[in-house]
Amino acid sequence: MKELIRRKRDGEALTQEEIERWIHGVVDGSVPDYQSSALLMAITLRGMTRAETIALTEAMLRSGRVLEWSRLGRPTVDKHSTGGVGDKVSIALAPWVAACGAVVPMIAGRGLGHTGGTLDKLEAIPGFRVKLSIDEFTAQVERIGLVIAGQTGELDPADQELYALRDVTATVESVPLIVASILSKKFASGTEAVVFDVKRGGGAFMRTEKEARALARELVDVSHELERRGYAVITSMEQPLGLAIGNASETAEAFALLHGQAPPDLMEVTKELAVRMLLVAKIARERFEAEARLDRVLESGEAVRRAEAWVQAQGGDPRAVNDASILPRAEVETPVLAKRSGYVTGIDARALGTLLVAMRGGRARKEDPVDPAVGVRLVAKRGDAVREGEPMALVEAHRAASDWAEAAGRAFTIGDAAPAKEPVILEEVR
Amino acid sequence: MKELIRRKRDGEALTQEEIERWIHGVVDGSVPDYQSSALLMAITLRGMTRAETIALTEAMLRSGRVLEWSRLGRPTVDKHSTGGVGDKVSIALAPWVAACGAVVPMIAGRGLGHTGGTLDKLEAIPGFRVKLSIDEFTAQVERIGLVIAGQTGELDPADQELYALRDVTATVESVPLIVASILSKKFASGTEAVVFDVKRGGGAFMRTEKEARALARELVDVSHELERRGYAVITSMEQPLGLAIGNASETAEAFALLHGQAPPDLMEVTKELAVRMLLVAKIARERFEAEARLDRVLESGEAVRRAEAWVQAQGGDPRAVNDASILPRAEVETPVLAKRSGYVTGIDARALGTLLVAMRGGRARKEDPVDPAVGVRLVAKRGDAVREGEPMALVEAHRAASDWAEAAGRAFTIGDAAPAKEPVILEEVR
Repeated sequence: MKELIRRKRDGEALTQEEIERWIHGVVDGSVPDYQSSALLMAITLRGMTRAETIALTEAMLRSGRVLEWSRLGRPTVDKHSTGGVGDKVSIALAPWVAACGAVVPMIAGRGLGHTGGTLDKLEAIPGFRVKLSIDEFTAQVERIGLVIAGQTGELDPADQELYALRDVTATVESVPLIVASILSKKFASGTEAVVFDVKRGGGAFMRTEKEARALARELVDVSHELERRGYAVITSMEQPLGLAIGNASETAEAFALLHGQAPPDLMEVTKELAVRMLLVAKIARERFEAEARLDRVLESGEAVRRAEAWVQAQGGDPRAVNDASILPRAEVETPVLAKRSGYVTGIDARALGTLLVAMRGGRARKEDPVDPAVGVRLVAKRGDAVREGEPMALVEAHRAASDWAEAAGRAFTIGDAAPAKEPVILEEVR
Repeated sequence: MKELIRRKRDGEALTQEEIERWIHGVVDGSVPDYQSSALLMAITLRGMTRAETIALTEAMLRSGRVLEWSRLGRPTVDKHSTGGVGDKVSIALAPWVAACGAVVPMIAGRGLGHTGGTLDKLEAIPGFRVKLSIDEFTAQVERIGLVIAGQTGELDPADQELYALRDVTATVESVPLIVASILSKKFASGTEAVVFDVKRGGGAFMRTEKEARALARELVDVSHELERRGYAVITSMEQPLGLAIGNASETAEAFALLHGQAPPDLMEVTKELAVRMLLVAKIARERFEAEARLDRVLESGEAVRRAEAWVQAQGGDPRAVNDASILPRAEVETPVLAKRSGYVTGIDARALGTLLVAMRGGRARKEDPVDPAVGVRLVAKRGDAVREGEPMALVEAHRAASDWAEAAGRAFTIGDAAPAKEPVILEEVR
């Protein structure tokens, strides 16, 4: 192991056999954490070749049980977002795509730092269980073709060990480690195809075009090398996605989308990802065909019914899909007033994500509890006109919160002229 | 801590306060090993500024008890070698310099890999104890002005923790970490001045002129910054030092030096270091004065008597200083025969050090026991003429060992012409 760390420290490429030996040792406990963390840092600073990334992904993927759904005779497809602020897409997308005939066995995560997590959002639904055993997970996929749950110890245990270690050793920000973590988890859950939503901008993990493109490229190419289908969309995370920021209100906003009611940017991103999922799953051959199918299940109410069945299957109150008043809600709204008239030229997504953590609606540390009721609701978005003294947003809390409203106000930039329109869907990487 | 690791990962310099926080956490156990090892790897790959190295050395030095000898009214001086093959210098040097009036409170180490360690060599003496309590250490320094012992838990505990971690995480080879480890330990034992013997060449840790010079420079400069006196000599480690390789026979060779009998290269290095120690300790003002003093205590037998008192103080049989037959000895000598006639143009020190490990006379792993009796005795050194079929060395083992003799033979290079003479003392760094 020491020799293996030394080789990576000196910038050499590890062999497949060495990487397998490491990952076995991580899972059976024979490689101590302090050796893994030294190696993780060496990988973070020295990088990995494509062959190493593939070997690492495969070794992690095979470190536990690997699910397989060919017996269902239906295409499987999943989506992964690299994380942002207001990103509630999965909660609408998964039942929507499942209603079109896809099987969606989704493993999702919790929020950390300024970015939110799908599991936290779902837990805002009374009764909803995100911790499923592997048997429950399997039975639900077989019965309704749709699950969103947390990782279980049996799937990709290497990722669980390594992720926990990366989180406390400043080795999260490494493209090969990110790619191996995402793909090993996704493919261990048995999906044949994945659409990646690589967020780019101030509120995202990848801030620049170059970084986002490199990550998207690596995700897609390594998927192909592993003989799965992958497709990436780079989407903007300069301002928050949609209007709701906060777990319960984001869930409500996602469900409203299934009723055809959504802020335009949220609808655009969700539909683009849904189209790409149907195409990559080969449920549709052309974009117009995918769009027609998606429109049909939305209009017919099939998407809503699939969401109800799913929420119920995981122990949640299915009324939440149609009635936001079922969800927890903070009692006091404090308006965030515009200090001047003009046009919103920017909304700092990262600042609002960080504010949510301060309001206890997000996590500074993994073990922190999350208050689903609090949040910030945007009234104006980029490009909108605002008038001095009128609300640009509402802080939703358990008390009058002029301090947080003040902080939220600082996330807005107001200019004299309307800014040029910027697309939400930035690029595709296939 | 995570933020601190991130900053070093990104190549930023840590503050003194951050480094102190880390070292406190290492000693009180609040910083887990996996975070320290990630940071050690980041330091290994990103380096440290001079200010960081000073802060790290100081924090480690103060992590436990710090000894102080001003009450003795005599100068303190120590020597540190970066390690090589056949390097038994300390065993002769310490009593020799002590006999000249210096106080030598030396903390030494064990062998690991192809390099030997002074403690292992001393343990070849029947009864000799290298593990002393801090009270025993102190009492002996007060009584006879000379100790060579292993590190105790009370002195520089941070170094003990970090060294163990570096050893298993391939982070030993980092100049700032090496410098902080050496200096913190030396200065915690209370010495005011240190002479560094930086070994350079195939059998040394630093193989090139540039590496050796950089380490020597850093050791000397950081010592000065810490208001201690430091002086470095770069010496050759292309071939083994002296003729004996193996713990008992090296100890015997070192004691023979105190009787005026030593291979020329061993005498030259030992005397040079002794001169420098007397100068840096201000016991002598000029080289000729130091040399005269050293010659005097050798001729008068004072150096031998000091060695006897020292060995006895640490529980060893003092007859070992005068009579090598007291020391363990392997029963069977297998000659290493020259395959052709010519001149020895090189002896691969690293290969012989590695052979000693294979013979169980050194350690592949820290926890391995060491057999003091086995070794290789050189008959010819670089520049000597050899004749085909005549012995160039003797393998000393518990059985006839043609395999080891074969391996030892491969360490010799024989050419047609005598090679140009190369100096043993290569450079000084003050």
